[in-house]
Amino acid sequence: MRVIALTTDFGTADGYVGVMKGVILSIVPEVHLVDLSHEIPPQDVRRAAFVLYTAVPFFPPGTVHLAVVDPGVGTERRAIAVQTPQGFFVGPDNGLFTYVLAEAEEWKAVGLEEPAYRLPEVSGTFHGRDVFAPAAAHLARGVPLERLGSPVTDPVLLPLPRLTVGEDRVEGEILHVDRFGNVITSVGRLRWNGGDLVLTPAFRQAASSLQFAAREVAVEVGGERIRPVRRTYGEVGVGEKLALVGSTGFLEIAVRQGNAARALGVHPGDPITLRLR
Amino acid sequence: MRVIALTTDFGTADGYVGVMKGVILSIVPEVHLVDLSHEIPPQDVRRAAFVLYTAVPFFPPGTVHLAVVDPGVGTERRAIAVQTPQGFFVGPDNGLFTYVLAEAEEWKAVGLEEPAYRLPEVSGTFHGRDVFAPAAAHLARGVPLERLGSPVTDPVLLPLPRLTVGEDRVEGEILHVDRFGNVITSVGRLRWNGGDLVLTPAFRQAASSLQFAAREVAVEVGGERIRPVRRTYGEVGVGEKLALVGSTGFLEIAVRQGNAARALGVHPGDPITLRLR
Amino acid sequence: MRVIALTTDFGTADGYVGVMKGVILSIVPEVHLVDLSHEIPPQDVRRAAFVLYTAVPFFPPGTVHLAVVDPGVGTERRAIAVQTPQGFFVGPDNGLFTYVLAEAEEWKAVGLEEPAYRLPEVSGTFHGRDVFAPAAAHLARGVPLERLGSPVTDPVLLPLPRLTVGEDRVEGEILHVDRFGNVITSVGRLRWNGGDLVLTPAFRQAASSLQFAAREVAVEVGGERIRPVRRTYGEVGVGEKLALVGSTGFLEIAVRQGNAARALGVHPGDPITLRLR
Repeated sequence: MRVIALTTDFGTADGYVGVMKGVILSIVPEVHLVDLSHEIPPQDVRRAAFVLYTAVPFFPPGTVHLAVVDPGVGTERRAIAVQTPQGFFVGPDNGLFTYVLAEAEEWKAVGLEEPAYRLPEVSGTFHGRDVFAPAAAHLARGVPLERLGSPVTDPVLLPLPRLTVGEDRVEGEILHVDRFGNVITSVGRLRWNGGDLVLTPAFRQAASSLQFAAREVAVEVGGERIRPVRRTYGEVGVGEKLALVGSTGFLEIAVRQGNAARALGVHPGDPITLRLR
Repeated sequence: MRVIALTTDFGTADGYVGVMKGVILSIVPEVHLVDLSHEIPPQDVRRAAFVLYTAVPFFPPGTVHLAVVDPGVGTERRAIAVQTPQGFFVGPDNGLFTYVLAEAEEWKAVGLEEPAYRLPEVSGTFHGRDVFAPAAAHLARGVPLERLGSPVTDPVLLPLPRLTVGEDRVEGEILHVDRFGNVITSVGRLRWNGGDLVLTPAFRQAASSLQFAAREVAVEVGGERIRPVRRTYGEVGVGEKLALVGSTGFLEIAVRQGNAARALGVHPGDPITLRLR
Repeated sequence: MRVIALTTDFGTADGYVGVMKGVILSIVPEVHLVDLSHEIPPQDVRRAAFVLYTAVPFFPPGTVHLAVVDPGVGTERRAIAVQTPQGFFVGPDNGLFTYVLAEAEEWKAVGLEEPAYRLPEVSGTFHGRDVFAPAAAHLARGVPLERLGSPVTDPVLLPLPRLTVGEDRVEGEILHVDRFGNVITSVGRLRWNGGDLVLTPAFRQAASSLQFAAREVAVEVGGERIRPVRRTYGEVGVGEKLALVGSTGFLEIAVRQGNAARALGVHPGDPITLRLR
C-alpha cells in the first residue's frame, strides 16, 4: 500500500486538508495518508522545504510527498511533480523541493498539464484540491510520472542556507525553531567520529569536509558563547544551555527541559558561528 | 474500504477524537478515517455545517460523515443518521446537516435509538464516543440505515444564510473567515460563463438565477468598495484586495498573500452587497 | 490490521510525528495509525498518563500505544515496552504508564535494548523516531515482547492522584481541564445505582467502596459549593454550574455551554471536596 504524506500551510480548522484527502481516496482507495505538517506558517515555503527535507529519508521508498504551500496560486507559477530515488514530490514550482533536490542523486520532473490527471473543474484558488491531490493520487496508483505532463528541467530553487567553512570558523544561520524552542542551525551535516565531529556540508554548499575536536570548539549565538558540543541533554543540568548534534545532523542549540530560542532571543535567519580554535 | 470523515469541535489535545477512532476500529477494522476538522469553535454548529457542505462533494460516494458539535448533549435533542445519494451523516439533530440537506436531491433519516448500535453504557456527556461513533462504524460496515432506529422526517434546520437577489444588487452576509483571512460570503453559487458570472443561489435560497458582467459589478464590504470580480489572485498586486469566485463557488474577498478579514475588519455575519450596475 | 495509537508532546507543526509514522510504515505497511494527542503540554508526563488512561479501554485489544513525552531523552532513563491484557505500551520509563498499570490485572515489561528493533543509528535527542517508533512497529507486526529486551519489573510510577475517603467527606484534586473548560477531578470511579452514586476508587488508591445519595452531597471547589450531583447538562440552565459524573467515571464540574475552569478560576492540582452530609 503506497503512502501519501501531506505537508501544507492550510491548518486543520477549515477542512481544506480533509477535502484533499477526499479527492485522493476517490482516485486511489488503497493508500496510507500521513500528515507531515499542516502548521507551516502561511506561505513560508522555506520552512516547508526544511520540514520535508528532514522527513523524507524516514518514509518508505516510493512515498508520494504532496506539498502545498502556494503563495503563487492563481499566477503563472508552474505545478510540478518530481521523482527521485526516494519517491515522488508534487506541488507548486516555487522552491518547496529545493533541499530534497540538492540531496538527490538524480531526479526528473514534469509540469502537471495533463487534464486527465486533474479534477474536471480547476478553481483559481485551490490547486491543492484540483491539481496537486489528483496528481499525487494517480502517482500512488502507479501512473508513470511522464504521463502527467511534459519535462521540466529548471525547477525553481531557493537560495541554500548560509554556510561558510573557514580555517578557524564555520559561519551559518538559524534555520528553524521547533515547538520545544530548540534552535536548528545550517551547520551540518555533522557526525561523530570518536570525540571528533566531522562536518560534511549538506546540500553541497561547500566543497570539502572538515574534522575537529568537539570539546575544543565554541558556538556563538545570540550574543552568547556555548561550549563544547555535547552528545546529549543529559550532559548538562536542567535549565542549562547546550550545543549538540540534532536528530537531523545539524548543530542545535537547546536548553535542557527548557526553551533555547526564548532564552537566547533568537529567530530563523539569525547568524551563528562555530569557532574552531 | 469505506471512508469515515470526522468533524468535531473537540480539538486534538484531550484525546476525545482518538477515543472515537478507537471505538470505530473496534467495530469495523477495515475503514479509512479522515479528519475533516476538529477545530470547529466550541459549539459553533453553523461553522461545522458550512465546513461539511464544502467538503462532502469531494469524498467518495458512500462516505460516512461523523459530525459532533453538540451543545445539547445531555438534553432531549435527538441523535440522527441521514442518508443521501452522497453518503451518510451521523450526529446530533441540531442543524449540522442543514446545508447538506438543502442541496440533496433526496434523503432519509432515522433516530439513533437501537441499543445494539450504541456502546453498552451510554454516558451523559460523550455521545460522540458512545452513540455517534458506533453508529458511523456500523453504517461503514454495511448495516442498513433503517436498522439504527425509527424514521425522522423533521430534522432540525438552521436558517439559511442571507441572500437577497434584486434588480440592481445582491445582498448577502459573510459566512466564514478561513485561516488565511479569506472572507467567504453567502453570494453563490457562482460560475463563469465567458466574461459573465452566473449566480445560481445555493441551498435554494432564491428562486431564479442571474447573469451579469463580472467587470461591471462592485462588492461593498467593511465600508470598502472592491471591483471588478477577478478570476485569480494573479490579477492584482501583492497586498491588494480583490473579489473573486472562491473554490466552493461562493464570492470571496481576499488580499493577495495577505489577510482580508483583518484588512477589512470584518467577521462572519457582517453584510456584503454586490452592486450590479 | 493492528492499530498503533500515538500520544506525544511534539505538536503537529515540525513534522516529528509524521517522521515517526514514516518509520512505522517502513517496518509494518499494514497498520492503522491513530493520533490520540500530540498537544500534551511539553514534558507534562502526568497529563499524557491521564489521556492514555481514559482512552485505552476504547481501543481494540492488541492495540500498540506509542507514547513519547520524554523530558529525560539523552539521560540514563530506560526505554520500555509493556504488555497488558489490553495491548502494548511503548515509551520512555518515566511514569507515562502509571495509571494504565494501576488498573491492569497483570502486565510484563522489557527494556528496549535489542539493536535489531531500533533504527541503525540512534540519535541523542529523538528516540521517538529511532527507538520507540521501531519498537511499536515490530510489536504491531507480531514480534513477541520478550524479543525487544530483558525484563523490567520496576517501571517508574508517578504518585497516584490524591483521593481520601472519609466518613463525611471525600477529598481529591483536579486532574485535568479539557478544551471546553470541563474540570475533571480525581474523585472516581463513580457509577449510578438508582439515585445513589457508588464510588469505587480508581487506581486502587483507597481500600473500600462507598455508596451515597447523589442529591444529598455538595461539591466544594474554587471557593464555591455546587450541589447536587447531576446526570446530564440538561438538568441545569445554560450558563449554570453543575457537578456530574463525567464520561470516564470521574466527578466533573462543568458549566452548561460554558467554561467551568474559567468561571471557577481553578487549575489542575487544586483541591476538591465532596461533602457527604
